[in-house]
Amino acid sequence: MREEFQADLNEVTRLLVTMAEGVRTALRNATTALLTADLKAAESVIERDVEIDAIYSQVETKVADTIARQAPVASDLRMVITALHISADIERMGDLAEHVAKTAIRRHPSPAVPAELRPVFKKMAEVADAMAGEITKLLAHPDAELAAALETADDKIDDQERELFRIMLADDWPYGAETAIDGALLGRFYERYADHAVNVGAQLVYLITGDKVTGQS
Amino acid sequence: MREEFQADLNEVTRLLVTMAEGVRTALRNATTALLTADLKAAESVIERDVEIDAIYSQVETKVADTIARQAPVASDLRMVITALHISADIERMGDLAEHVAKTAIRRHPSPAVPAELRPVFKKMAEVADAMAGEITKLLAHPDAELAAALETADDKIDDQERELFRIMLADDWPYGAETAIDGALLGRFYERYADHAVNVGAQLVYLITGDKVTGQS
Repeated sequence: MREEFQADLNEVTRLLVTMAEGVRTALRNATTALLTADLKAAESVIERDVEIDAIYSQVETKVADTIARQAPVASDLRMVITALHISADIERMGDLAEHVAKTAIRRHPSPAVPAELRPVFKKMAEVADAMAGEITKLLAHPDAELAAALETADDKIDDQERELFRIMLADDWPYGAETAIDGALLGRFYERYADHAVNVGAQLVYLITGDKVTGQS
Repeated sequence: MREEFQADLNEVTRLLVTMAEGVRTALRNATTALLTADLKAAESVIERDVEIDAIYSQVETKVADTIARQAPVASDLRMVITALHISADIERMGDLAEHVAKTAIRRHPSPAVPAELRPVFKKMAEVADAMAGEITKLLAHPDAELAAALETADDKIDDQERELFRIMLADDWPYGAETAIDGALLGRFYERYADHAVNVGAQLVYLITGDKVTGQS
């Protein structure tokens, strides 16, 4: 029974890692689409989000199946329920990458962000990409310290979001309301992507230590 | 065993209804704060979100406890796992109401939205409030048809969001980037609140009919 449970758990983890890799690629392609008005990159994000959703659904089925067959209790049960939460966070990261891609498509062939904002988005995307990479590693080898480091990375995203607003709200902002709205919403998509990455880290800390970490709001 | 399981489920439902009522009140107060620059209303939303988060945590504990003690399978297991998803959606609705309240606080004593946008937000808030009310009813008496009606209500929110953008992107928009950014983000908070309400409806349909409804992205 114990061995079977471990095998089930390994399968769940394998699915979560695949999801995490998927949403990392998604945000990379979405950022390329955003910064270089690359329509194909944007479309690939939307096409491949269907695959991520399908794996999400597999995680749910596998978890329900594991609970039904193995009747786990205590920390084993906590582990499989946490897997459900983690998959929901990763699935949402995929949606947010898709939102970025859709913004790029809506403005195509114009670039969705003006030159002044591109360094900020490039930086946000780099940090978010590293965070998605950490999640993949953490899922394979949970480590409370590494998970907590996601919070520090998230602070960098918040700094960049403030920088974004500083530029858009300056007196000499030349682009008017539409570009500012796009900028603000895009900033929020990256920021939320990072928040969900932090949530995944917090869930993993909970798994390891049993300490409940308050979610991002 | 069966009776005990039913009692557990009733307790989970009771908690979900309390959460749903809480996030309904939260959005009402947040909207009051937004439209009338009412600082006390805004602060009450933030204070009471802690209570909603606490109930969310109780749902999680109760669900884990129910699975561990009753070892439910098949549709019983589906029901308790669905309750977890529903509580996550409702918890997020509370966070979004809090975001609205925080925007009102940030602009206080100025009103956060100019007069031109107030009718749109008033309308969005009315529809979102009705949706939160439907959820409370649906939790007590699941009904696939009523749950599906949430989708129709959500379309109204989307219409209002389009109207919001139409006003802000008009050539004669007099308020510049900052007010447009606030308007766009606020529009998104209401829209996401409504999306989560639709998700709750979809989860309830799944409970009743077993049909998987695709989540909102």
